Amino acid sequence: MPIVYLNGDYLPLEEATVPVEDRGFLFADGIYEVVRFYRGRSFQLEAHLQRLQHSAQGAHLPLASAAAELPGIIERLLVENDLQDANVYIQYTRGAAHPRTHTFPAAAQPTVLVMPVPIHALPGDAFTRGVSAVTMPDLRWRRCDIKSTMLLPNVIAKQQARDQGAFEAILVRDGVVTEGSSTNMFAVIDGSLTTHPADQDVLGGITRQVILALAATLCLGICEETFTVDQLYDAEEVFLTSTTSEVLPITQVDGRAIGDGRPGRVTMRLFEAFQKEVAS
Amino acid sequence: MPIVYLNGDYLPLEEATVPVEDRGFLFADGIYEVVRFYRGRSFQLEAHLQRLQHSAQGAHLPLASAAAELPGIIERLLVENDLQDANVYIQYTRGAAHPRTHTFPAAAQPTVLVMPVPIHALPGDAFTRGVSAVTMPDLRWRRCDIKSTMLLPNVIAKQQARDQGAFEAILVRDGVVTEGSSTNMFAVIDGSLTTHPADQDVLGGITRQVILALAATLCLGICEETFTVDQLYDAEEVFLTSTTSEVLPITQVDGRAIGDGRPGRVTMRLFEAFQKEVAS
Repeated sequence: MPIVYLNGDYLPLEEATVPVEDRGFLFADGIYEVVRFYRGRSFQLEAHLQRLQHSAQGAHLPLASAAAELPGIIERLLVENDLQDANVYIQYTRGAAHPRTHTFPAAAQPTVLVMPVPIHALPGDAFTRGVSAVTMPDLRWRRCDIKSTMLLPNVIAKQQARDQGAFEAILVRDGVVTEGSSTNMFAVIDGSLTTHPADQDVLGGITRQVILALAATLCLGICEETFTVDQLYDAEEVFLTSTTSEVLPITQVDGRAIGDGRPGRVTMRLFEAFQKEVAS
Repeated sequence: MPIVYLNGDYLPLEEATVPVEDRGFLFADGIYEVVRFYRGRSFQLEAHLQRLQHSAQGAHLPLASAAAELPGIIERLLVENDLQDANVYIQYTRGAAHPRTHTFPAAAQPTVLVMPVPIHALPGDAFTRGVSAVTMPDLRWRRCDIKSTMLLPNVIAKQQARDQGAFEAILVRDGVVTEGSSTNMFAVIDGSLTTHPADQDVLGGITRQVILALAATLCLGICEETFTVDQLYDAEEVFLTSTTSEVLPITQVDGRAIGDGRPGRVTMRLFEAFQKEVAS
């Protein structure tokens, strides 16, 4: 079990507890980030911290001074746990307050949790053969740009996908593909790299942003516009992005092959460009 | 600080903690109920337990045997805390699991928390003068029939209402009044008692159901249909219901007087019938 940071203390994970009255536990009154480390160095840490600020503003959740201290906390956690390649999970909540009541507490101290989480093991042939996905209704709230801990619909969607033998659930709102249950979704449509605009219906993914920038350097056509499920089925290529899954080709959706059923050329160019970016 | 029940133990609230890896804390992967006790006796406990089952099914969350033991747990808590009139809060989560991952854990034990929570103090003239409310967009997910702990939008809405000097936020989706941030919403429109159908966009309130039954015994016209914000403004009467607020007249919405600006006759008849029901 790793050492984690909780409200000023570094302690073994099994000793890290929060009061049952923590508003993160009672109200999902909290936000989070997951930052990737490669060979001991953070990837896009600044962008993650900026998004944390964005989530905090959206949730009217004041970040304590700890926000400025996060880089130091994370660095110490990597040392304590002797980690080079890792995901670091950061969560803020509005803190514990008595008694339970919806309105913001007058004087609660935010709860701050930082902990290493394992890098997901992907299927061995995930990058060479691609993964499959299934579509399902996007039931989430209308502020998905806030990375809140309100993840029950994501959890259910991911589990339902796995129950159907698929790697990811692709969420669909009013016929439009929004994103995956924990990933952003890209499709190559008529040669252009297409993804849902970074509005309030999707998370503004950090890896999503990196991929859009890399696509520009590769002179690809880029289209931040919505696309439908039918456009998804008919896309030349589909892939997902996330901090933990990076760039992952999707070669089957709802049992239908995407393109020729193999990872596409644009996907692989972006995958390679991303690996270079990470290595640099 | 009261004695609370947590996973088999009765302990002081200040000692009741959950691991940071509890999925209730990380994913809002949990459901809850609040049950009212009057003079030591529960009100509609069976209906609350049935709704807990409904939420559990919707969230694919297996209730452990503790579900059957809940009445006994609650009874002991009332004795331990020497309570006659109280609200009792019940929360189930999918439990603590390592490492953090969206999919359901193979072998986590559900977390069960039961604790007394105070009865909200209402403004002294709430029943004689009514309270005010403000409308705002309903940003919540599309399974509001599941009483999950995903309450961040409710929390923000309630706080914004209070910041505007109002008692409650009335949530509006696509022009339609769904419910309050922690209450169901009723309007008397053309003489008929009107409230949003108990579908996936509102919580099937227990007090809502009691009021509908009482309205039938009073021979009132009942209309479980959606109504718009304009219909709300023009309603003869408006009131809210909830386990903790019971029946409360709303006499002002967005600064406009409802009816003649005083609690209406239908509201007061139902309020009195509800008080009789509770007393019996």
